[in-house]
Amino acid sequence: MLKHLSKSYLILRQFSSNAFSLRTHNCGELRKSDVGKKVHLYGWVLKSRLNGSFIVLHDKYGFVQARLPSDSKLKDIAATLKIEDVLKVVGTVTSRGEHANPEMETGDIDIEIESLEVLNKCSSIPFPVIGNLKPEAETEIELRKRLTFRYFDLRKTETQRILHLRANIVKKIRRCLEDELGFIEVETPTLAAHTPGGAAEFIVPTQMHGQVYSLPQSPQIYKQLLMIGQLDRYYQIARCYRDESIRGDRQPEFTQVDLELSFVSQDQVLSLLEKMIVDSWPETLASHKPTTPFQRLSFDEAMIKYGSDKPDLRIPWIFEDCSNIFNDSAMKAYGFVVKDYKKNVGLPSSGALKRKFTKLYPHYDHKNLRFFISNEKEVFGKDIDSNLIQKFNLEKDDLLVIGVTNEPKKSCYKLLSTMGHARNYLADLLNLRSQKKFSFTWIIDFPLFVESETDSSKLESAHHPFTAPIPEDLERLKNGENLDTVKAQHYDLVINGNEMGGGSIRIHDATLQRHIFENILKFPTKTLEPFLTALSLGAPPHGGFALGLDRYIACLAAEGNPHSSVREVIAFPKTKEGRCAMFSTPFEPDDEMLARYRCSFSSHS
Amino acid sequence: MLKHLSKSYLILRQFSSNAFSLRTHNCGELRKSDVGKKVHLYGWVLKSRLNGSFIVLHDKYGFVQARLPSDSKLKDIAATLKIEDVLKVVGTVTSRGEHANPEMETGDIDIEIESLEVLNKCSSIPFPVIGNLKPEAETEIELRKRLTFRYFDLRKTETQRILHLRANIVKKIRRCLEDELGFIEVETPTLAAHTPGGAAEFIVPTQMHGQVYSLPQSPQIYKQLLMIGQLDRYYQIARCYRDESIRGDRQPEFTQVDLELSFVSQDQVLSLLEKMIVDSWPETLASHKPTTPFQRLSFDEAMIKYGSDKPDLRIPWIFEDCSNIFNDSAMKAYGFVVKDYKKNVGLPSSGALKRKFTKLYPHYDHKNLRFFISNEKEVFGKDIDSNLIQKFNLEKDDLLVIGVTNEPKKSCYKLLSTMGHARNYLADLLNLRSQKKFSFTWIIDFPLFVESETDSSKLESAHHPFTAPIPEDLERLKNGENLDTVKAQHYDLVINGNEMGGGSIRIHDATLQRHIFENILKFPTKTLEPFLTALSLGAPPHGGFALGLDRYIACLAAEGNPHSSVREVIAFPKTKEGRCAMFSTPFEPDDEMLARYRCSFSSHS
Repeated sequence: MLKHLSKSYLILRQFSSNAFSLRTHNCGELRKSDVGKKVHLYGWVLKSRLNGSFIVLHDKYGFVQARLPSDSKLKDIAATLKIEDVLKVVGTVTSRGEHANPEMETGDIDIEIESLEVLNKCSSIPFPVIGNLKPEAETEIELRKRLTFRYFDLRKTETQRILHLRANIVKKIRRCLEDELGFIEVETPTLAAHTPGGAAEFIVPTQMHGQVYSLPQSPQIYKQLLMIGQLDRYYQIARCYRDESIRGDRQPEFTQVDLELSFVSQDQVLSLLEKMIVDSWPETLASHKPTTPFQRLSFDEAMIKYGSDKPDLRIPWIFEDCSNIFNDSAMKAYGFVVKDYKKNVGLPSSGALKRKFTKLYPHYDHKNLRFFISNEKEVFGKDIDSNLIQKFNLEKDDLLVIGVTNEPKKSCYKLLSTMGHARNYLADLLNLRSQKKFSFTWIIDFPLFVESETDSSKLESAHHPFTAPIPEDLERLKNGENLDTVKAQHYDLVINGNEMGGGSIRIHDATLQRHIFENILKFPTKTLEPFLTALSLGAPPHGGFALGLDRYIACLAAEGNPHSSVREVIAFPKTKEGRCAMFSTPFEPDDEMLARYRCSFSSHS
Repeated sequence: MLKHLSKSYLILRQFSSNAFSLRTHNCGELRKSDVGKKVHLYGWVLKSRLNGSFIVLHDKYGFVQARLPSDSKLKDIAATLKIEDVLKVVGTVTSRGEHANPEMETGDIDIEIESLEVLNKCSSIPFPVIGNLKPEAETEIELRKRLTFRYFDLRKTETQRILHLRANIVKKIRRCLEDELGFIEVETPTLAAHTPGGAAEFIVPTQMHGQVYSLPQSPQIYKQLLMIGQLDRYYQIARCYRDESIRGDRQPEFTQVDLELSFVSQDQVLSLLEKMIVDSWPETLASHKPTTPFQRLSFDEAMIKYGSDKPDLRIPWIFEDCSNIFNDSAMKAYGFVVKDYKKNVGLPSSGALKRKFTKLYPHYDHKNLRFFISNEKEVFGKDIDSNLIQKFNLEKDDLLVIGVTNEPKKSCYKLLSTMGHARNYLADLLNLRSQKKFSFTWIIDFPLFVESETDSSKLESAHHPFTAPIPEDLERLKNGENLDTVKAQHYDLVINGNEMGGGSIRIHDATLQRHIFENILKFPTKTLEPFLTALSLGAPPHGGFALGLDRYIACLAAEGNPHSSVREVIAFPKTKEGRCAMFSTPFEPDDEMLARYRCSFSSHS
């Protein structure tokens, strides 16, 4: 059945994709008004009926039927046609009259074939090009096959829709920045210097005596240098790299909309980005276009209300402080209610919930977490339970998720974070996160530093070492007082519980930057000296942002589903192991390559 | 002297670069009509007179004078100002009346300062920001300094002009391809598979047991896969890499405008590219806009007339066949005349010319080359000399450059190529190549294969192994007859004697592609099997092009001078040794990096 043969991702068909082409028309554009025209069509066989008497051709623009006259000498050729063979068809547009197919955009006409040429054969079909992009629950084997034949996968209407969505949004972002906001596109090097801190960077050996370039995790240093170079407003759709095990849904190379501007406040950067997002919003999602300004939450507020610095605000549950119920002034307690939890069939009981959730997130603070259903068993003892029921208006079938701790703030944040994961987990169980809805939030007022995970006596940058503090905390930063509470002029953009990008106002003062490098982060500053020199030669106050393009497009393409994979929005993605399934990269270098770099790899660890 | 303080590269000032900004106006936009306005300006000190009573501020948009009232309390601060300090000035726009400076765009007004804040100091000036981009004859030391402080170099009006020219042309190219021709921008991987043939590719070690990615020299394979994926018309401003010693003016990473389309003829690709170039032509060079169609020369014609497959057609000299003058049917002879050569003062005599030229191009065929000035000494003997004088209408002071050989065609091409270099060399001596003029030429009908330089019994692809032959030579290619004379559907775009880009119609037939890989080029096909499979699954006929963006912009920025360096059009270029002078990259990796890839570099060769 060839139903709904429409390629609606091509909202604009007015461009002349038939200019400078062998075809006179593409496969999607012929209509009743074209009847009588002689046309040259090129396309692929979607379907061939009655020994090739009726052929449906397709290309990226659409579908059209070609028909062999009953006395045609081309019957022998036509009879050999197979699906996805490449054809040239010359013929005349004729009306199908009462045989029109209303489910095809070109269904009013067909082409009476005068000549037919097979330009190339398709030797086999790895999988159908018509139908869904992928099965509902795609197995690893199915995914692998799809990626092995990714060029074939690209023929699917859904894949093309996504690539067009991506190209369209990028186009609009560029135009907004260039035409309306005076940004200039500048390319920065990818064979770069190493930047300490942040993700591990790939190295690129050179023929210079064991010396290497780094593939940068972002153009951070370069874009700041452009501000020092008085470029004023820079942007780039920048390829970036990080050599991490592909956690969750990451790729070793990825793309970000990278921008930086001088003489700007944090509020102004946020407003500018809101304009960029709204202006580039896809027409196909017009009903979901966000309104500005986006909600702004401080880091502390996000943690205390949602247990996350990237809360999904489509989930209605907000944490409430219920510390006073526990008769201990050192005790902190937070809870949130899932109304009517038990009315949902097939969801785990509170005990099973605890076991499943603990297994999924083993590294969190589960000992202080309780799942409490009022008509199930006692949790904190009769008095406290009954106070909780009253405080949270708990009714039959409601679930209360509650965390209680008497540990200091930091541990309290670990408990809140556990509750935040429980919030997401429960929302997934209740299908609240697959809602076709977008919720945009700015998270601001992050801490500037966090304790090192490996050595709690050391501080690390919460984001990166170039972030400026809020003005109120500048003196404390200079004096080294309570550094763990110094707040940053950093901002993250969160959509549906995914961090889509982040940015900050940067440090423009060389002395302050050196203080942070040397005295606080204990970096070896040698490689950073040239950057400190640059700051000392008239660096303007400046700030910027980087939007993770792959993740952003993946979220839009899936209409808000934060679990959609970035793989689907990348033309040639790597597997989650970092491999190209088509070409089996990475590959073992040959001796010539190794000799060129005087390089060898040992097999022991 | 602050003359001609204009930043005319900013033809369009209507965009709101002051929106989402702390400034109310930039330094270039205030005019008489703004008198009375209270303004907040941010910029750098260009000049400070009379202890800071008069300050000229600048930013990327222009220059403006600020003036301290004689009773100002800010005199102490103002007196400390140094060049390139970053200031915030709040004040009122006042008319300069009869003191207007007609050489400043903002010269009718100045700003009466109400408040003044030094936002950052500039500790020293590596070189002036006002003045020429670089000295006429820049020394290596001066260049190195400029690159070490490249962010400071970026402040020069000329550098900014070039970066804006680049951004502007790229913007127009994108819009032409997207809006008028139906191309879609697709990003392709840079952590890629290795492509045999072509330039050496950098490798990128991974954490997977000594396996590496390649940094691609072009997206060739991927763009062909996009055609197989029915994307129909693809483009990308693509970062590419090659690990070659930086010959002449090459960079290890470079950018190309990369495009590919299906169902297209060679002629159509050429016309499309002509449209792209004309549509994106910079307004600042409007008088030089090329007319279409560009001249087309076959490879053979270019060699025989100009001794080069990238002739500079601004040079008027064309080779003429004068074989018949030499009484030997096996003899081939070509000559070209430089009129009035000896009237140019200071040019070398014919003997000195030969010595100098031979020294500059030692690897060419000098033994068969003569520089002949009619009123100097005899060259080929009286009779032949006098026949040559007659044939070429040689007059006193004319120079005849003549090559004579009885060797077969291949060697004849070597001689012609030597003459072609002599033609360029002489044109440089006579300043014919620095003309502000553009000459566009297509070179077509290249050979498909050339003899390997290292083993003359082997053939190599003249360009790359994916190039299709011209239809007339297809059968000979299949049968392996006279392969060295098979012509390619390859085309090079040449501007002023520089190859700016090239492209071809590709092979879409898997059997033919395999024949070329296996039987002719003797490639190990294992890594290419997936590509051959892709061709067998319904690959459409397709072709494309890649424009070397850096070189193209360098030529435009220098108004046609083919000797201009690509370094000037790249924001952060490498030195000719492939080093970043700012950060001293490449660098020695630390033990942690090496351990991550289980990688070591030996110091012996």
